[in-house]
Amino acid sequence: MLGKTRSADEILMAKPLLNVLAGQAIHPAPIWLMRQAGRYLPEYRKTRAKAASFLEFCFTPDLAVEASLQPIRRFALDGVILFSDILVLPHALGRKVVFVEGKGPVLEPLRHAHELDRLTPQAVRESLAAVFETLRRLRQELPKDVTLIGFAGAPWTVACYMVEGEGSRDFQAVRRLAYREPALFARLIGLLTDSTIDYLSAQIEAGAETLQIFDSWAGSLAEAELRRWSLEPLTRIVAALKQRHPEVPVILFPRGAGVLYREFALASGAAALSLDSSLPLAWAAEELQQRTTLQGNLDPLLLLEGGDAMREGAERILRMLGNGPFVFNLGHGILPDTPPEHVAELVDLVRGWKASTTA
Amino acid sequence: MLGKTRSADEILMAKPLLNVLAGQAIHPAPIWLMRQAGRYLPEYRKTRAKAASFLEFCFTPDLAVEASLQPIRRFALDGVILFSDILVLPHALGRKVVFVEGKGPVLEPLRHAHELDRLTPQAVRESLAAVFETLRRLRQELPKDVTLIGFAGAPWTVACYMVEGEGSRDFQAVRRLAYREPALFARLIGLLTDSTIDYLSAQIEAGAETLQIFDSWAGSLAEAELRRWSLEPLTRIVAALKQRHPEVPVILFPRGAGVLYREFALASGAAALSLDSSLPLAWAAEELQQRTTLQGNLDPLLLLEGGDAMREGAERILRMLGNGPFVFNLGHGILPDTPPEHVAELVDLVRGWKASTTA
Repeated sequence: MLGKTRSADEILMAKPLLNVLAGQAIHPAPIWLMRQAGRYLPEYRKTRAKAASFLEFCFTPDLAVEASLQPIRRFALDGVILFSDILVLPHALGRKVVFVEGKGPVLEPLRHAHELDRLTPQAVRESLAAVFETLRRLRQELPKDVTLIGFAGAPWTVACYMVEGEGSRDFQAVRRLAYREPALFARLIGLLTDSTIDYLSAQIEAGAETLQIFDSWAGSLAEAELRRWSLEPLTRIVAALKQRHPEVPVILFPRGAGVLYREFALASGAAALSLDSSLPLAWAAEELQQRTTLQGNLDPLLLLEGGDAMREGAERILRMLGNGPFVFNLGHGILPDTPPEHVAELVDLVRGWKASTTA
Repeated sequence: MLGKTRSADEILMAKPLLNVLAGQAIHPAPIWLMRQAGRYLPEYRKTRAKAASFLEFCFTPDLAVEASLQPIRRFALDGVILFSDILVLPHALGRKVVFVEGKGPVLEPLRHAHELDRLTPQAVRESLAAVFETLRRLRQELPKDVTLIGFAGAPWTVACYMVEGEGSRDFQAVRRLAYREPALFARLIGLLTDSTIDYLSAQIEAGAETLQIFDSWAGSLAEAELRRWSLEPLTRIVAALKQRHPEVPVILFPRGAGVLYREFALASGAAALSLDSSLPLAWAAEELQQRTTLQGNLDPLLLLEGGDAMREGAERILRMLGNGPFVFNLGHGILPDTPPEHVAELVDLVRGWKASTTA
């Protein structure tokens, strides 16, 4: 068999993150961290300074590849996540998106049918060509045991920003639009769902080996609306991606879904669920991990604080979830003031953790 | 038996809300609404204009009694809730509290032990004498079938405002303080717990027939911290109140607690749990209502919007929870722009609802 190219199985075996997403329990658990490429790293801030705007940063493959790779130069992480932003999709759909320093993203709020009619889903692949180029280069440059993670925002969360025009404490404008004009809002969610399927398919074609879909504001929805605007579109995205690319596992992050995480485990078809920090671990182990790989869920504030509290929090997660298929991660993105040494210590702790031998 | 004063049982029978809080299922379910005395009522805005500040409004019994009673003049509600604010407690403890129009409450942030040492728990009863006077007058003026509801903020939620100094999207300052200085933070929570027991006991002595404790920001806590800073102090408050006033039922509102609502049902000792709008009703019926009276949970945005969406939302809640011990309410407070006619329609709908006869 000399000279034979490596089989899919051999490649899979070399990538712990893909193994776990395929349902295997691995010790030590693989680890990556949401927003691992970010402002907490001084080298990131240097790279960021080379672009005039945040969107230019995302759309310059030289810079985005560099930012994506910075975390694995420092830390023994199992995944590299594409450096980008969930709001490149509304940008590609023709909405103006500006990232304002110290404030966050600002968009022209979308509230009317005529604005919906002007969206440009046919332009997504062309507008986001730089993102796919970044993924192609990353796939070539990655160490062989590291998995390349693509991502997108969930339709609901992207719609939150498109309708509100910015972040919000309670998302009243978008939730109100969904109640008052359900047909219009269903069109927006449908369009975002189709565009996200298209966008993520192109990420796979460019080299992404797994995908995470962030529904950061799922928890702002009432029960019936969470099913309709979060669970249903995400289920449709997972099914469409499975049909086109059955080998690529999808991770869903319906942050704040609480008890409804169970319906995501039962019905979404996702390979894994990423848990926020509030979800009780014993419940997750019992109700979710029987059916799906879990990922999470250290409070990012504990990573920022470090010390005994961080270590105890991380060990508790490993004790509770580390014996099933599990990926260590945070419950939300790394905070900008986090000391990189805390990240190094956390990665060491997870890598060095041995499953308890107590009866 | 002519001329005999009414027995405790007879009084209880006349108050549907108290019956349900004692564990009975009643048709139609009693109804009251969080923040039912508020800016959505034009007569409230007139009363509010008579006080120079919001705190003066709370501390002037003539005005607070009037505001408390306004909702039952319009709507057939089963409860009158004391008009006040959860932040009168930090005010009584010696912290400066100002309500800024259009922004909300602003406090001098508490971050250090020496600030904690200067708090004045011994002053609570005297500082809040006007609140107790308001309750005494309300108890005299209430129709005999209406229940008088006292309330306080939970220690965690009050601590959120005391440490942050204002409302917040993610409560990083207070959560960080709790991680970094757990002993200091435990002292603050302990002091707030004791003061809340004292404050609520005095409300009962002044005539409150039931109490609701609002933990509006419970959902911002990670799992272990939610147990420590929300469930444990609330359990202690309920136990202390039960010992002093076993006849007065306590309603807890651990908003956003998700799966952990189950631990509140199992362990807190509360007579009832108030549900936020995101909690799945089938799960609540199965996991919680077997053990405790439930209250909730219409999305306040549906009440604001009105129409079919509101009616369907309300009917769904009644179908799912109305056959057990249940109090109709919202999942959070009434929004200021809510048309009063929507409230009237909702109350009529709940009062006219008949349990389904389907097999």
